[in-house]
Amino acid sequence: MTSDLSPDALPPASSGHIRLTSHSGGLDALPIRWGAPTPAERGPVVGTTSRRSHRNVIGTHSGSYSVYRALAVAAGALSREHRADLTDTAPTDVVGPHPQWSEPDRIVSLDPWGAVTSDVFADRLAAGHDIRPTIAITKAHVILPEIADAIAQGRLRPDGRFLLDSGAALVTKAAVEPVWYLPGVAQRFGCTEAALRRVLFEETGGMYPELVTRSDLEVFLPPIGGQTVYIFGSATDLVNPEVELTARVHDECNGSDVFGSDICTCRPYLTHAIEECILCAQRGGVGLVAYSRKEGRALGEVTKFLVYNARKRQVGGDTAEQYFARTECVAGVQDMRFQELMPDVLHWLGIRKIHRLVSMSNMKYDAITGSGIEVGERVNIPDELIPADAQVEIDAKMAAGYFTPGQVPDAAELGKAKGRGLGT
Amino acid sequence: MTSDLSPDALPPASSGHIRLTSHSGGLDALPIRWGAPTPAERGPVVGTTSRRSHRNVIGTHSGSYSVYRALAVAAGALSREHRADLTDTAPTDVVGPHPQWSEPDRIVSLDPWGAVTSDVFADRLAAGHDIRPTIAITKAHVILPEIADAIAQGRLRPDGRFLLDSGAALVTKAAVEPVWYLPGVAQRFGCTEAALRRVLFEETGGMYPELVTRSDLEVFLPPIGGQTVYIFGSATDLVNPEVELTARVHDECNGSDVFGSDICTCRPYLTHAIEECILCAQRGGVGLVAYSRKEGRALGEVTKFLVYNARKRQVGGDTAEQYFARTECVAGVQDMRFQELMPDVLHWLGIRKIHRLVSMSNMKYDAITGSGIEVGERVNIPDELIPADAQVEIDAKMAAGYFTPGQVPDAAELGKAKGRGLGT
Repeated sequence: MTSDLSPDALPPASSGHIRLTSHSGGLDALPIRWGAPTPAERGPVVGTTSRRSHRNVIGTHSGSYSVYRALAVAAGALSREHRADLTDTAPTDVVGPHPQWSEPDRIVSLDPWGAVTSDVFADRLAAGHDIRPTIAITKAHVILPEIADAIAQGRLRPDGRFLLDSGAALVTKAAVEPVWYLPGVAQRFGCTEAALRRVLFEETGGMYPELVTRSDLEVFLPPIGGQTVYIFGSATDLVNPEVELTARVHDECNGSDVFGSDICTCRPYLTHAIEECILCAQRGGVGLVAYSRKEGRALGEVTKFLVYNARKRQVGGDTAEQYFARTECVAGVQDMRFQELMPDVLHWLGIRKIHRLVSMSNMKYDAITGSGIEVGERVNIPDELIPADAQVEIDAKMAAGYFTPGQVPDAAELGKAKGRGLGT
Repeated sequence: MTSDLSPDALPPASSGHIRLTSHSGGLDALPIRWGAPTPAERGPVVGTTSRRSHRNVIGTHSGSYSVYRALAVAAGALSREHRADLTDTAPTDVVGPHPQWSEPDRIVSLDPWGAVTSDVFADRLAAGHDIRPTIAITKAHVILPEIADAIAQGRLRPDGRFLLDSGAALVTKAAVEPVWYLPGVAQRFGCTEAALRRVLFEETGGMYPELVTRSDLEVFLPPIGGQTVYIFGSATDLVNPEVELTARVHDECNGSDVFGSDICTCRPYLTHAIEECILCAQRGGVGLVAYSRKEGRALGEVTKFLVYNARKRQVGGDTAEQYFARTECVAGVQDMRFQELMPDVLHWLGIRKIHRLVSMSNMKYDAITGSGIEVGERVNIPDELIPADAQVEIDAKMAAGYFTPGQVPDAAELGKAKGRGLGT
């Protein structure tokens, strides 16, 4: 479905005036009142590139994939006037609205109304505004060899409802794009909004001058990866603190999650969490995995591999003692994941209590509890799932404050070279 | 390691002049002569944000993770003057230089010298230029349940060299960040450089005005995900067309690669390729998997899930006939992966011939052979690895030109609803 050209549509790329930034809004732009209780009062997020005068955000949709969309236009494969035909795309499951959606500062990095834009902004769509969902919810079968193994070992039993004989676990899953409310993000990081805007602009080498010229635009669609949530059991049960919830918040690690590298515990901990989620659903609870695209502690994979080499080659070998120091030497920080924004997706789902948090990270725990969600038990990764070469990481993290039901390694332990060298 | 403040260092975020874009280069910026035969003539890629006058590119390092780096500065966790201490981070394996690195237009989307910056630009680093690697090469163990299963079934045999008794496959792996030479990228897509620059700027909602104000800067570090290459066997054997090479070029699909969704063949095809790579290394060849961060055909996961819902709900059910149409309705195109840029990483590795290409995609095949790499056999996914719900995808792709050694489905087959509904 391609819409008609309007007077304020962009000119073809080969002609016309280029506007390097803007200093005031279009007359037709709808206001966004972040955190307002109803969609009508909140207003839609409009990141279209085909009607400049309708835009009410900085940036555009699809996170970093907006660059590929631009390539598609440049290659002549995509009309810049294309408007999505959203027939039959509505969420398979109802999420919200929840009180958290309009509690002050509860959600600042995603649009809680992002899954239901076609419904709640139907009048605005009909009036010609190009409003796109920033969240999509569907059903899927999750089929993991580790789950098949758990069935074979008798730890899991198919029930035909949450887990099929085939080994498939039935899930509801949602993809969530980042939508940042800049005043709220600044508050989370303890800086002024002006400082955040300026640093985002300057430290990316000059991305989006509207960050500094358009203080009236409070919402930014950053070109970064989003999140995916997997729900085992009923999504509506997530809001009920009486229903047991087992949850893991997992940050992407392609080398382990997909390729099974043994230098860390990422995939084993993830598959263990999925096993726990299925068990929880089977005993009347619900399971949740929230997966964030933050490769290599949000430092990216090049930095990660550089750090691996430095760890393996340093004098004294790969030790827990030097684990964080090696990352800091290369990256300047130990971690850039900023768990401060992570609980937003839990509040979008209406969660008030996590009975079993499948994570040892104190940073994740502190962020979740600090955001007002109660956490019961913390579930560590079983020792037998820790690969030998990943002992360095686990020791270092436990010494740095990660949760463990066992003993925290002492200085002598931390100084031992437990990681493999590069030659083997 | 933090460097001294220099006169042209950026002021603190809270004060000083904000420059919205630039119109000419710093006097201290080193020229880049893309494709020049030696590093000295080519010059380093300098994307630093701490010395504006040294910058010779648009954008900055780490792809989309540059946004997180900015957050770290805003949060006060990272000094904007931090410079990476690259001690012990050098590549574990030598890649190149290869003749392809300086052949005209052979490589336009990565920096072939990106792994060896500390070595080949040592003099420039010593002179104070902040030159960062855009490629990192390390060693790893790849441990997959599917490979353990292949060993148990007798299809693979550990040899203590390429495959250990533990089930671990030994690999060399490299992470590669995107570095775009804009005149070359434009040529690949058949548009002018001016049109590419303008569309990249406008269709991202105004990202990087230097794309249009700085035609003297020909290199762009786009905020997108990169690639990872996994080498089974010796990296140096990749250049020898006499040594058998088994290769798969795989595009990210988080839902299958990590979570084992059965709506597509992504993970089964990937693990089959890894099995083929190990076998190839064991018979004296070499195996290669190149993994690109192009989730959901580079449309992103929100679009992907919207399309899943539309496919499952449409009148007539989920059919191969309507497979591509559903994506096009939502996204405006069937695919945004643009395989045109994909062969660059193969040329970086010096590859001239792929004996066994583990892919059925005609788009990948055409891009690889069109770039001058010979392809021998094409290896389809074995039928028994295709999940029932993924038959729609495979049928649709075969009908659209994907390689198959078997029969291409006819209209009657394509019209059958073979995909599961959403309720089950």
